[in-house]
Amino acid sequence: QIGSSFVQHYYQLFDADRTQLGAIYIDASCLTWEGQQFQGKAAIVEKLSSLPFQKIQHSITAQDHQPTPDSCILSMVVGQLKADDDQVLGFHQTFLLKSFQGAWVCTNEVFRLALHNV
Amino acid sequence: QIGSSFVQHYYQLFDADRTQLGAIYIDASCLTWEGQQFQGKAAIVEKLSSLPFQKIQHSITAQDHQPTPDSCILSMVVGQLKADDDQVLGFHQTFLLKSFQGAWVCTNEVFRLALHNV
Repeated sequence: QIGSSFVQHYYQLFDADRTQLGAIYIDASCLTWEGQQFQGKAAIVEKLSSLPFQKIQHSITAQDHQPTPDSCILSMVVGQLKADDDQVLGFHQTFLLKSFQGAWVCTNEVFRLALHNV
Repeated sequence: QIGSSFVQHYYQLFDADRTQLGAIYIDASCLTWEGQQFQGKAAIVEKLSSLPFQKIQHSITAQDHQPTPDSCILSMVVGQLKADDDQVLGFHQTFLLKSFQGAWVCTNEVFRLALHNV
């Protein structure tokens, strides 16, 4: 339930005000966004904040969560998103969550749009 | 390059003879396959071996790899597969790789078919 709570929180925050996502990352966090790599809370929030749309809405189709041997949680999400007035696109996103100073943070994140429209 | 070598090896073995995939898992490994969970090398290989097709061919569209704070490698793959004479389907797959007794093994794996045909 940590994984699904995180995922719900992430997309709620992303869709409401993605400039506020900093609290879920640490300086060791890595993001790969459509093949581009970003390291650290500041660089990640800068990237997410500067994505070229005003409004976005995610809907989750499937999410899977697993504990890892290092006491992390691996989450894979498949869903759809609609940015501004663009067509609906599919996406896949993976998160690795780790307990850090009493909170769950995202140490690793990978995002890809689906290649084909849905 | 560990991540991309692993991914290449995994799909080559999967497409050639998936009953031989045991060497990449350990007893702590977890697989979630289309929402169904399997734990341990034996259960995972049994699941993969019993998938209901004779021939399968994967092609990779995009793969992303990241180091994690626990010295693992997180890999996300997006691609297409063709099983027997079925239509081509999209898939997404995530792996967490860990060095174990001198070899890289897969401790966590999540697989989902894309919902829509490509």
